[in-house]
Amino acid sequence: MTPPEPISCDALLARVETIFRRAGLRPESARSVAAVIVAGERDNCKSHGLYRLEGCLKVIAAGRVAPGAVPAIHDGGRAVIEVDAGGGFANPAFDAARDLLAARARETGLAALVIRDCLHFSALWHDVEALAGQGLAALSMCPSYAFVAPAGGKAPLLGTNPLAFGWPRPGPHPYVFDFATSVAARGEIELHRRAGKPIPEGWAVDGDGQPTTDPQTALAGAMLTFGGHKGSAISTMIELLAGAMLGEFMSREALEFMGGGDLLPRHGALVLALDPQVFAARSGRDPIAEGERLLTAFGAQGARLPSERRFAARDRALRDGIALSADELARLERFEAEGLAAVSA
Amino acid sequence: MTPPEPISCDALLARVETIFRRAGLRPESARSVAAVIVAGERDNCKSHGLYRLEGCLKVIAAGRVAPGAVPAIHDGGRAVIEVDAGGGFANPAFDAARDLLAARARETGLAALVIRDCLHFSALWHDVEALAGQGLAALSMCPSYAFVAPAGGKAPLLGTNPLAFGWPRPGPHPYVFDFATSVAARGEIELHRRAGKPIPEGWAVDGDGQPTTDPQTALAGAMLTFGGHKGSAISTMIELLAGAMLGEFMSREALEFMGGGDLLPRHGALVLALDPQVFAARSGRDPIAEGERLLTAFGAQGARLPSERRFAARDRALRDGIALSADELARLERFEAEGLAAVSA
Repeated sequence: MTPPEPISCDALLARVETIFRRAGLRPESARSVAAVIVAGERDNCKSHGLYRLEGCLKVIAAGRVAPGAVPAIHDGGRAVIEVDAGGGFANPAFDAARDLLAARARETGLAALVIRDCLHFSALWHDVEALAGQGLAALSMCPSYAFVAPAGGKAPLLGTNPLAFGWPRPGPHPYVFDFATSVAARGEIELHRRAGKPIPEGWAVDGDGQPTTDPQTALAGAMLTFGGHKGSAISTMIELLAGAMLGEFMSREALEFMGGGDLLPRHGALVLALDPQVFAARSGRDPIAEGERLLTAFGAQGARLPSERRFAARDRALRDGIALSADELARLERFEAEGLAAVSA
Repeated sequence: MTPPEPISCDALLARVETIFRRAGLRPESARSVAAVIVAGERDNCKSHGLYRLEGCLKVIAAGRVAPGAVPAIHDGGRAVIEVDAGGGFANPAFDAARDLLAARARETGLAALVIRDCLHFSALWHDVEALAGQGLAALSMCPSYAFVAPAGGKAPLLGTNPLAFGWPRPGPHPYVFDFATSVAARGEIELHRRAGKPIPEGWAVDGDGQPTTDPQTALAGAMLTFGGHKGSAISTMIELLAGAMLGEFMSREALEFMGGGDLLPRHGALVLALDPQVFAARSGRDPIAEGERLLTAFGAQGARLPSERRFAARDRALRDGIALSADELARLERFEAEGLAAVSA
């Protein structure tokens, strides 16, 4: 069978956007959610690409997300800006507040965006890249569902709690990392399960705290953090800063609220934006040029920067289009034809 | 031989303070530097305890720290406060700006302290604990000397780049972690070298990028980050945020400036303070009580919190005094008797 023709990023965006509009999202929200999904597919970041479409539609069909939610910004005029997602997806809320966050960071040196009461499924690199594109350093973090045991523990208590960081660079691609503080993303384990493949050792334990390589057992047991007690500490920090500190759900409460992890989690998120020009001003140095001295030295010793593979995939996709498999295309067409009925029981 | 009698924390503080005053530090600076060293010893955090006395005296004797430096605060009234350490130790500069940082964080929600041009040797937990004691969440980070290779690389480019985080808790001890983003602290490798013990595999590579367990070879080669590419990414973030962004030395420049790693490094540091009460206000929840729901659940499943051992040692030391070995006591007495002459060539 010949594989399908590649599809352009713009054409895929329009199709996914239409799916979300038909599913009841406001046009602005449909655009935000579609954009982050297509960006994942474009970057060959499969676990955050079209794969997520089904999960988004499911939570709409289940009535557990507010498709018509209008993000409401609360700005006390200090260094903390809040946006209430109103039980909608996180991406429209971030997009609504992004420019204000950037402006505030330039004014005060650093600023924080609190996203309240949102459904979160997307890669955080999307947000920090947007801010880095405006010349800002950015940190983004959120809890998720309690699927991860703390170091020395055995029962799920922490989320996979992603952490992303962006730093502006000359040229099209910033320095960006974005990773789950679990050894692996839960989506990766799910993809292993679908593919019938065992997961590597060290990713998870079963309900008794014993190591397992079976993805199904892992999903029912507890995942482990990367980096032992240090990774566990960072994951805990994310629970505290992006959960407890905001007065939003932590990962365990998110799981209890949704009555299990089948649907997307509802919680808050925290984004910090820092303006290197404000921080460096008195030094007389150019912070971006300083950063380049470090980052260009990585390649000189053969070390890859995070996101390099993703950016290479992006460049290819923007040039040649996105090569979907026949299966992926069929799934997309089914969502287009059937809408929410495709995911309803 | 009977071990020496334990010495009280206050008595040890007075003795160490006197050593620094005699070595030329201003009284306020002597107190700040002595306090962090005695706190390390008190907490049985040996690599940041009295062991550091020699390094501090050496850099004074070498004329590479400004003992009389007066920290100068520059406050633009925004969310970023700067303090110029003036080539002095970092601790007096932090202590001079700490209350202003805390007040600003309460006012704006979050604030940053930039410490410029300081010599840094101390554990960062000292700083974040002080802020947590004032009800604030705090993050602290700094570059160090370029002794660590990035993931996939082979030559030193990153520092051991510590990261510390503090979160306020009811009771005497906050939630605190503080770790080097290298697998191990360089001080630990140095202690292995002194003890003639091999280091564990995975801590370091030799100059050709091959694994080594010889501490001397490790010190001459490159250390590795914790957590593979994720730890390497966090270490890189610290270089960018606490080096490039501030317009202060990154780890490689710090090493070049000092002409090697024998003396303490000179660079900047970044401290972020966040007020959970500001962030949580609109939620109607108590962020500290929320944090407790997570942190108390750790113990229920047998997981230890970071710093628990340190706090237990502290409680013992405050009750029973600090039990120095005969060797440690003799070294202290020598510094008291000889001052800088004890460390001069």
